[in-house]
Amino acid sequence: MECDQEVCLPDQLTIGLLGGTGPQGRGLALRFGLAGHRVLLGSRDPDRAAGIVAELVGGRDLDIKGVGNADAAAAADVVFLVFPFAGQADVLPELAEAIGDRVVVDVVNPLGWDEQGPYLLEVPEGSAAEQAAALLPRARVVAAFHHAAPRLLADPERQVETDVLVAGDDPAARGLVLELADQVPGCRGVDAGPLRMARHLEGFTAVIVGINRRHKIHAGLRISRLGDDKRRRLNAELRPARGSGGLKERSASPPENRDREEGP
Amino acid sequence: MECDQEVCLPDQLTIGLLGGTGPQGRGLALRFGLAGHRVLLGSRDPDRAAGIVAELVGGRDLDIKGVGNADAAAAADVVFLVFPFAGQADVLPELAEAIGDRVVVDVVNPLGWDEQGPYLLEVPEGSAAEQAAALLPRARVVAAFHHAAPRLLADPERQVETDVLVAGDDPAARGLVLELADQVPGCRGVDAGPLRMARHLEGFTAVIVGINRRHKIHAGLRISRLGDDKRRRLNAELRPARGSGGLKERSASPPENRDREEGP
Repeated sequence: MECDQEVCLPDQLTIGLLGGTGPQGRGLALRFGLAGHRVLLGSRDPDRAAGIVAELVGGRDLDIKGVGNADAAAAADVVFLVFPFAGQADVLPELAEAIGDRVVVDVVNPLGWDEQGPYLLEVPEGSAAEQAAALLPRARVVAAFHHAAPRLLADPERQVETDVLVAGDDPAARGLVLELADQVPGCRGVDAGPLRMARHLEGFTAVIVGINRRHKIHAGLRISRLGDDKRRRLNAELRPARGSGGLKERSASPPENRDREEGP
Repeated sequence: MECDQEVCLPDQLTIGLLGGTGPQGRGLALRFGLAGHRVLLGSRDPDRAAGIVAELVGGRDLDIKGVGNADAAAAADVVFLVFPFAGQADVLPELAEAIGDRVVVDVVNPLGWDEQGPYLLEVPEGSAAEQAAALLPRARVVAAFHHAAPRLLADPERQVETDVLVAGDDPAARGLVLELADQVPGCRGVDAGPLRMARHLEGFTAVIVGINRRHKIHAGLRISRLGDDKRRRLNAELRPARGSGGLKERSASPPENRDREEGP
């Protein structure tokens, strides 16, 4: 596809949102639908997913369908995990085969709440995204979209004012998700490095949720002093070559040799 | 003191920067000196501190002096910890008596570095700031200023473009540090809640350091959709009453009963 736009869109993708019936899943479905992608909003209960999609789409001309989680995974180019954290470890093993070696975007925030407010749950693997990577050893897992407020995602009249920090060990997968982030009005994709950074992205959600509660806002975060030209140029270096059909393929060389961070 | 300025300055404070000879300590010393405070830049070696201060002040009319760490602590209204993390646990016990029940601002980022870039070190207490609180049981510890780039702090011609997230269990101490943050041009103090949030502030530094390295910038972070009027009003609610001389005093009521987060 020729790219003559400010943000270079990938070809239309099929995006599967697993556990997508909650506010985050619905909001992302709407935004990716508006960006021109085909969206499969997955649930354990396909009928429930279909009902939610009917309400979400309203009369608009959007290619969003409600399906079962495994069907959403099997038909997708990119799989988003938008389960509540409590469900992730139970649900992923039974979806691992359908997910295969796809790019997986873990949006899960493992948060608890007590009398002091929000806090990050202990995850033995280090983060929800690293837990997903452990349960989906063939998948190319990245962590992203933690700080996009569901309330803003849900309202197509509003900008989602946040940078979307993207962490993952597969540079091409990171590059793809950075590009998707740029397609949501108000969002900027920012490369946050390897997957082990996911714990800090998830943890920062606890900070933002607390700020939201105190100030009664829907905050996001911006990386300051990061110019868009340089950001876009570096993000583009991560992207898979156009027309390579490589979205579902893992590169032959291991991630640690392909990341420009590890270059000389 | 009357307050007719946009940001309501506290009376001139004496600010002690312990382990202040590194880039972060020098930059904060300069900025707090420029804000009109008396600054004591502390080091194990008072002569070294004095030499660094002479260079830092140049010909400017700033009240900054280089002294030993214990002297900086004993004379200060507010104590900043700007040690390298590796030194904190060794140095604090011998300074605990001099620090006493003062407001302590832990700026320490417990970061390591390997072939994948920066990462957060494991701290048994949960964070560098919680380690400091454990070693200084009488002090009123807050975590702040992790994301203020030393390079920008050091250049008085430039704005330090970052929100300063302030976490701590003592609301009045948090309020004071939020006010100090607002005095650095380009910074905004943002209440980040209880001290247990410190681990996420420290961890996010690893994310920013990685972004800096990839993009060759001196990034900070901004909380989006947080209006200044509401931010200042909520921060002001945390401040100790003017003229109470209460900076070194701990309130009689325990922090958990004084924090508006725990209110009905």
